[in-house]
Amino acid sequence: MNLLEKTLEQIKDLNVEAMLKTKNRVDNLIKPIGSLGKLEEIVIQLSGITGELYPKVDKKSVIVMAADHGVWEEGIAEASQEVTVMQTINMAKNITGVCALSNVSKADVVVVDIGVASNIEHEKVINKKISYGTKNIAKGPAMTREEAIKAIEVGIEIANTEVKKGKNILATGEMGIGNTTPSSAILSLVTGIDASEVTGVGANLPENKVMNKVNVIKRALEINKPDKNDPIDILAKIGGYDIAGMTGTFIGAAACSVPVVVDGFISTVSAIIACMIEPKVKGYLIASHSSNERASKVASEFIGLKPMLDLNMRLGEGSGAVLAFNIIEAATDMNNMMITFEESGIAAV
Amino acid sequence: MNLLEKTLEQIKDLNVEAMLKTKNRVDNLIKPIGSLGKLEEIVIQLSGITGELYPKVDKKSVIVMAADHGVWEEGIAEASQEVTVMQTINMAKNITGVCALSNVSKADVVVVDIGVASNIEHEKVINKKISYGTKNIAKGPAMTREEAIKAIEVGIEIANTEVKKGKNILATGEMGIGNTTPSSAILSLVTGIDASEVTGVGANLPENKVMNKVNVIKRALEINKPDKNDPIDILAKIGGYDIAGMTGTFIGAAACSVPVVVDGFISTVSAIIACMIEPKVKGYLIASHSSNERASKVASEFIGLKPMLDLNMRLGEGSGAVLAFNIIEAATDMNNMMITFEESGIAAV
Repeated sequence: MNLLEKTLEQIKDLNVEAMLKTKNRVDNLIKPIGSLGKLEEIVIQLSGITGELYPKVDKKSVIVMAADHGVWEEGIAEASQEVTVMQTINMAKNITGVCALSNVSKADVVVVDIGVASNIEHEKVINKKISYGTKNIAKGPAMTREEAIKAIEVGIEIANTEVKKGKNILATGEMGIGNTTPSSAILSLVTGIDASEVTGVGANLPENKVMNKVNVIKRALEINKPDKNDPIDILAKIGGYDIAGMTGTFIGAAACSVPVVVDGFISTVSAIIACMIEPKVKGYLIASHSSNERASKVASEFIGLKPMLDLNMRLGEGSGAVLAFNIIEAATDMNNMMITFEESGIAAV
Repeated sequence: MNLLEKTLEQIKDLNVEAMLKTKNRVDNLIKPIGSLGKLEEIVIQLSGITGELYPKVDKKSVIVMAADHGVWEEGIAEASQEVTVMQTINMAKNITGVCALSNVSKADVVVVDIGVASNIEHEKVINKKISYGTKNIAKGPAMTREEAIKAIEVGIEIANTEVKKGKNILATGEMGIGNTTPSSAILSLVTGIDASEVTGVGANLPENKVMNKVNVIKRALEINKPDKNDPIDILAKIGGYDIAGMTGTFIGAAACSVPVVVDGFISTVSAIIACMIEPKVKGYLIASHSSNERASKVASEFIGLKPMLDLNMRLGEGSGAVLAFNIIEAATDMNNMMITFEESGIAAV
């Protein structure tokens, strides 16, 4: 049994007893019942995940998977592929978007080279390179099935390491020029929606080049014929190392009974694959923001996630996910700090 | 010239030069242009407010105005009026919703008795009581014109005090059983939308009692005939001390060149009145969450505010506003911590 299989066996259903106990407390806090909406749902979910009546989410990491995409050569992105390696290093230097936005929640940014096209020498970049970028999906499969499993296992390993370090909440992020192309390809395949309706501008692709991106995606689907009921086959044929790595992070977090925050479009597509591999993963996911990338809403709705932040963001990197950390922590503060009606002597409304 | 008049004279237009400089920096940070959406808008607005290229919002207070409403006797709320005084004291004890949710951003909760119906003896409740609750607006005016001005001036004074203490961002909140009734009355008057369409359940009013609430609001409008072009007249005839106090907080913050976060429905109605008194106030407002109270969206759209949080909350107290503090601070971290393309050697996209 490989690490993926072993990890999948460890994923439990949410602890319903703990959820009911927390719901009972939340309903009795000094506020109109239900008036803290999503915060109430979150803390109940956290109890289901951890089995704790007073769950904690005060030690945070965002795990950023960096990888290149062979399909870049089809002209589906404006930025040079060099940007992947430069931004991966900048992330390790703590000067990119996700780093800045992690400051307020004091989250660690864990940077993983899972498939960047050039060598990276930086002590803070974890070297888990599977290959120097995927192959061009417009011409054939992105990677082998074995490589897809290996990439998922990288995500699992990093999640395990973070949890062993004491982290009690994780988030996913990515860095990879061209990675909205495989994401839209996967979403088109699993939803059955035509590629033209789930393809957007990614990192400012000019509108007049979007049709080419759509055609590249259609070609990738035609040439590779991924089995839409086999999530590993999907990752191998039209995915990316970053996407597969995030899939592993979701699975690994779930197996560790730790909540994991979904970032925007690419992250949500990875979460879809993770839930196809093991539907129980869904209970461990917390949606963060509604990305401005065109098909983000389709992806969230397909998996039944409701983002809580509406910031018109579309940077990726995990930048939206880390902004949700403090709100999730506030939900636990609600549970910890507010008193109940009984304790206060006020009649409940 | 009274304090209100003096304060209004101090409110400046936003500093366009500072905004353009910050926009230039934000457009050159290492990310696709525009990809951090609302965060980019926020930091540009903060520069306009403060004149600073690296604005700071790290010292936070939420000012909670507590008051009772004579219209309570019409059966427009489920909770007993006693809850106002009990929750005001609980707020000073740091155990209500807004207190718990302020923990993560380390915001101070400033509790002001501006018109609670009973005496409050608690060292942490600031006594600015104008009267023991408003009069019943279904029978006559809530307060005199002089009292309305005095209540606004209380809000200005508290804002001034907080800024003098070093606070660089404020938020508004309220505690007052029955206060969605005057809020809906004001919104109906200023928008011209029938009361039946802008009246909701407040703190869990049973649906079968909402029609009575609507009729009470219609009666208040008919009997008092507030001048819809005179915001002070509106506050005096169909407002509340809490609403007028928050109006003053918005005006006071603007005069101090400090940003001020709008909470949910009641807070947004107060912001509408503040902008009617002085349209320049608008530039100092930052919307937080989209409250679940029925007419919240109407109120936000009327004043042109776009909330960034979608949490299905409807507690009031400032509970949604304080959750926005960290996101606003993250916008300043973006500006402070991310490097520019020039600095990084990457070509902009």
